[in-house]
Amino acid sequence: MRLLDEQSIEDIAVGATILGTGGGGDPYIGKLMAIDAVLEHGPVKLIEPCDVDDDALVIPVAMMGAPTVLVEKIPRGDEIFEAFGALERRFGRKAVATMSIEAGGVNSTIPLAVAARLGMPVVDCDGMGRAFPEIQMVVPHLYGVKATPMAMADEKGNFVMLETIDNFWTEKISRAVTVVMGGSAIIALYAMTGKQLKEATVYGSLTLAETIGRTLREAKQAKKNPVKELLKLVRGYELFRGKIIDVVRRTVAGFARGEARFEGIDDYAGHELIIQFQNENLVAIKDGRIIATVPDLITVLEIETGLPITTEGLRYGYRVTVIGIPCNPKWRTPKALEVVGPRYFGYDIDYVPIEERVKEVIG
Amino acid sequence: MRLLDEQSIEDIAVGATILGTGGGGDPYIGKLMAIDAVLEHGPVKLIEPCDVDDDALVIPVAMMGAPTVLVEKIPRGDEIFEAFGALERRFGRKAVATMSIEAGGVNSTIPLAVAARLGMPVVDCDGMGRAFPEIQMVVPHLYGVKATPMAMADEKGNFVMLETIDNFWTEKISRAVTVVMGGSAIIALYAMTGKQLKEATVYGSLTLAETIGRTLREAKQAKKNPVKELLKLVRGYELFRGKIIDVVRRTVAGFARGEARFEGIDDYAGHELIIQFQNENLVAIKDGRIIATVPDLITVLEIETGLPITTEGLRYGYRVTVIGIPCNPKWRTPKALEVVGPRYFGYDIDYVPIEERVKEVIG
Repeated sequence: MRLLDEQSIEDIAVGATILGTGGGGDPYIGKLMAIDAVLEHGPVKLIEPCDVDDDALVIPVAMMGAPTVLVEKIPRGDEIFEAFGALERRFGRKAVATMSIEAGGVNSTIPLAVAARLGMPVVDCDGMGRAFPEIQMVVPHLYGVKATPMAMADEKGNFVMLETIDNFWTEKISRAVTVVMGGSAIIALYAMTGKQLKEATVYGSLTLAETIGRTLREAKQAKKNPVKELLKLVRGYELFRGKIIDVVRRTVAGFARGEARFEGIDDYAGHELIIQFQNENLVAIKDGRIIATVPDLITVLEIETGLPITTEGLRYGYRVTVIGIPCNPKWRTPKALEVVGPRYFGYDIDYVPIEERVKEVIG
Repeated sequence: MRLLDEQSIEDIAVGATILGTGGGGDPYIGKLMAIDAVLEHGPVKLIEPCDVDDDALVIPVAMMGAPTVLVEKIPRGDEIFEAFGALERRFGRKAVATMSIEAGGVNSTIPLAVAARLGMPVVDCDGMGRAFPEIQMVVPHLYGVKATPMAMADEKGNFVMLETIDNFWTEKISRAVTVVMGGSAIIALYAMTGKQLKEATVYGSLTLAETIGRTLREAKQAKKNPVKELLKLVRGYELFRGKIIDVVRRTVAGFARGEARFEGIDDYAGHELIIQFQNENLVAIKDGRIIATVPDLITVLEIETGLPITTEGLRYGYRVTVIGIPCNPKWRTPKALEVVGPRYFGYDIDYVPIEERVKEVIG
């Protein structure tokens, strides 16, 4: 057990946004909510999955919807506790902790706000080790954990509870509700016992996010190259350096879909990169050849600071470094690739680990 | 208190479909479910609103969605009890009775199936005295009763509970869920105390529906003109007799929208009638002049038998009588007309009671 203070939250917000691979929500709102809660109620206890009793209840909280909307539609605040409390009432008992269901700017920090306000620890794990756009795209799903009962609340005061036959139906129904709620909703879902938690989550996500954030911060202070330090830490690859020359973005059926084009600079002059996204970055194509795909992580960073740019933050003229990070091995099984591989997102290609793709394209 | 047997249900199904004014669901499915339940569990007790204690709980059940879909997508059966039971659990007590939220083929008979199976009485009232397409279009809404908590269940086993800030949000969210559930859902909503029930419902709907059905049946046996007998009973107007020459129907956003054109026969030769509908018939236009609008009832009947034809049953070549029936006076206040008047449905006209419209157009 250790404590997360204001600085930890700042670092987590940065690091989680990098793991959020373009999605997971704008870090600003979640960070403010978490810092606000910590300043009022004191630091958050961070516990390990093995600290949770096998039969204890843990309830993740998150924000659902297109990141484009989250930026403009601020949560009221107490709808998070409504959603969380509704699941506790549904199970007829108190949760011992909360956690992140995905790594991402909003979705790594909102559980910290809940934990601080409820005086409850947060578990150092998450459901993905990155961000994904759909409800069933979490490791717990691969281990048979149900997303429902799922509570949804909006900032106006509307509330919906779902109990479905499977996680795909949960995605369909909750997506439709999110759209009607105005494009975003606060959700509590994938309630797990300690036993499920230990088996079916990605460990150490908050600590990894914090370490990433701290690495970038300290590199800057030490006048080192932040991107290089980051790549060393996460065993990632530099895929491209360039300037954004075009961004097409539409909010469709509750998702932000689109693509961004980058014109190479420095060593990459004369080359082009395209990133296609659905909330998160899905595929990176360099000069017509695929260089990285889901479930591996593709993240766009400011070239100087290494700070992440989410898909809704991509703007013409930005100078960026695009990096790739190997995903958690739990995503690389055939069963997992059915859920989050490129074919699920409509690409007629097999998943090839980024290590091999990079070797092939960059050499 | 009296008992409703198989014959009562047959008559109610016919009469309620006439009150359903084109919507309220195909009578066949609901009738079969109710008869099946009555054959197995015995007749249903029909009680008066004044028989319900002021603080007792009554839970209406219904089917939501486009009638076009209801015909093809048969309920599994037990989802009705899931929805009903979920509201009982939500309130932490048993309901003493169920009731119809609207008069209509399915929605007058489904509560009978529930009542028979649960050994519970059904109250002789409903929320509209007719059918309407949207959740907030009920008399209880005018009296401040909330539609939520509202339970929704589909035949696949998915379940959703809503708690909203107002009945318009309930309509928006539940409509989106209904669409995702495949176009129809079983719902339990507008739970009321006996006190609310006595103030905020249309009395005697089931008895009226039954009387209408019996009148048509007996007229046929006595070789009388069923439509004439019906018009006497409900103080209605014959608006047109004709042949259907065109039907345009689309299922849009969970509704069946469209229009039907009729070419006059007999006294009406050389004239034309158009009916526009959204699940229910909304407006009847004779030779370019409006002759009836919501909230008054517009119903299409088989010319010989007087049996009702719902909007999804309208077919080219059918010979029909179109009738109009004055709506319950509770729908004629300015506040009510904001909710169900022609302007709400996008018509740039004021509501004029059918008695005056008919005098004006027919003379």
